[in-house]
Amino acid sequence: MAKKVKSPFVGIDLGGTKVLAAIVSPKGRVVARAKNLTPDREGPEAVIAVVTETVRQALQKAEVKPDEVAGIGIGTPGLVDASTGIVRYAPNLAGWDEVPLGPALHKALGRPVIVGNDVDVSTFGEYAVGAGAGCNSVVGIFPGTGIGGALILNGRLHTGMRGSASELGHIVLMADGPLCGCGRRGCAEALASRTALERDLRAAIRFGQETALRDLIDDSDDHIRSGVLAQAARMGDRLMLETLQRTGYYLGLLAGSIVNVIDPEMVIFGGGLIEACQEWLMPTIRNTARQYFINRLDIDRVKMETALLGDDAGVLGAAMLARSTFGEK
Amino acid sequence: MAKKVKSPFVGIDLGGTKVLAAIVSPKGRVVARAKNLTPDREGPEAVIAVVTETVRQALQKAEVKPDEVAGIGIGTPGLVDASTGIVRYAPNLAGWDEVPLGPALHKALGRPVIVGNDVDVSTFGEYAVGAGAGCNSVVGIFPGTGIGGALILNGRLHTGMRGSASELGHIVLMADGPLCGCGRRGCAEALASRTALERDLRAAIRFGQETALRDLIDDSDDHIRSGVLAQAARMGDRLMLETLQRTGYYLGLLAGSIVNVIDPEMVIFGGGLIEACQEWLMPTIRNTARQYFINRLDIDRVKMETALLGDDAGVLGAAMLARSTFGEK
Repeated sequence: MAKKVKSPFVGIDLGGTKVLAAIVSPKGRVVARAKNLTPDREGPEAVIAVVTETVRQALQKAEVKPDEVAGIGIGTPGLVDASTGIVRYAPNLAGWDEVPLGPALHKALGRPVIVGNDVDVSTFGEYAVGAGAGCNSVVGIFPGTGIGGALILNGRLHTGMRGSASELGHIVLMADGPLCGCGRRGCAEALASRTALERDLRAAIRFGQETALRDLIDDSDDHIRSGVLAQAARMGDRLMLETLQRTGYYLGLLAGSIVNVIDPEMVIFGGGLIEACQEWLMPTIRNTARQYFINRLDIDRVKMETALLGDDAGVLGAAMLARSTFGEK
Repeated sequence: MAKKVKSPFVGIDLGGTKVLAAIVSPKGRVVARAKNLTPDREGPEAVIAVVTETVRQALQKAEVKPDEVAGIGIGTPGLVDASTGIVRYAPNLAGWDEVPLGPALHKALGRPVIVGNDVDVSTFGEYAVGAGAGCNSVVGIFPGTGIGGALILNGRLHTGMRGSASELGHIVLMADGPLCGCGRRGCAEALASRTALERDLRAAIRFGQETALRDLIDDSDDHIRSGVLAQAARMGDRLMLETLQRTGYYLGLLAGSIVNVIDPEMVIFGGGLIEACQEWLMPTIRNTARQYFINRLDIDRVKMETALLGDDAGVLGAAMLARSTFGEK
């Protein structure tokens, strides 16, 4: 057993499939972890009970009593009102509509709770102890089913008046462009998400283009795994490389646009697609974005990096958000 | 003569054609003004001398001595480093390259000086004593030759790491779209600026479209005056109305995108084009933007308004920026 940690924070990563909790030292070291499946079809109360239980398991492993905890942070999908701890809605969690997640966890665990959106929280982790450590202002771009975004300005998450800032996937990147999952047209998500990439690959296959993907995937698959995309790219498959090139180009336009709006120190790209395909995506992203920076001075000061924390970003970010909210200043 | 004002601020609006200075009470009342032409071809030193002289004239009219001034604010075109008061470059002012405007004015006038970009400063004026009074977070969009932008977040100008944040005109709104003045393609400026609007009008005229504009404008005119655009619209000219409709649509996509990124309390639209043509532009802007808001909750809390301060926005904004920087907290 490691030396007992003083004033630890609890970081929770609530996802649609699993709940992760970690006990984290004030410096960002994970002391203990616990994990359970999310009973997402059973409604908010069942989910909150599992979250509480997961935290208790992690505390037990770390030999930390609840009242020794300096603060609790939790990242959750959906729209969060950080001031009240209410999850206003969460499309990925069935029946989540105005759920008082923060107050419920506070009641169950007796310690102060800060609730954040999952992408915000993961980016905060990268800012605090990951790729963005040492930076003051960081933008997170996480292409997945949609495109998650986060803004950290002067060391604080910018969540906006209604908690819905940093929806970077819904910057219009191509007026009247392809249909987006949100029902509108030409959003960044409709061009540069993993969903858009798959849509284009499947269309190309349907249209008869020659590609190794035909043998690698099954038309009945729900979605193409990132590993398969990377495998096809490594084989030099032309369709795959061209599609990644296009995805990188649009992600670069998005990053260039957001740099022109925010002028941050760093843009951090994360998520499974970036992780698996960064060697093909990142050069195009960087080149395209830089080309679109309107301010040509000190251009090298704007960094574009990939996330470093992997699956730990959520729990570490939540714990570090709790530290910045409840820790000693 | 009005009652003598206590602890006044000086607001300066340095433009490519004229220099305005005003003595402003801490509550935002203009006590006295002065105005001179900008000797913009004579280089920075000549311009700074005229700025100083203009301030002295305004002080004299207000019967205020320099050492009674609580602080000086100045809005200038170009890229500003607010921390040093250096204008890094200003395409609209000949020979302006790393000009220490703040330090020079401080030396000449003996009072603390804060320097800001002109659009930032005007928007700050609207935030402090204009359309955005009472708001905490405001986005400014000023379509003109380009599209100026400004972000006020939690009561402070967000200028970014390099002073180049809020370049809203260089959000890509149409990947691979029309050529932008910046040399890239599809920027908001290339679609929704006054320059883009004129480009489309002139092309339509060249292509033989029927329009009242043919009689209202001269092909040799440098640019079409806003009043003429409004006149054609009022006459019901179809080309004019369609073009304004398209401009409003793109401005709406821009506003919707930026609301999805920032989630502000208000977006303020200003500048000569908006002022003259707001009755045709604003309904389209509002409808389009709202349609693109990804967060459908509390949608009416996001206001979209036109600027109120007109030509005073620059001096009032500069004075209010000085108040927020040097005034009593």
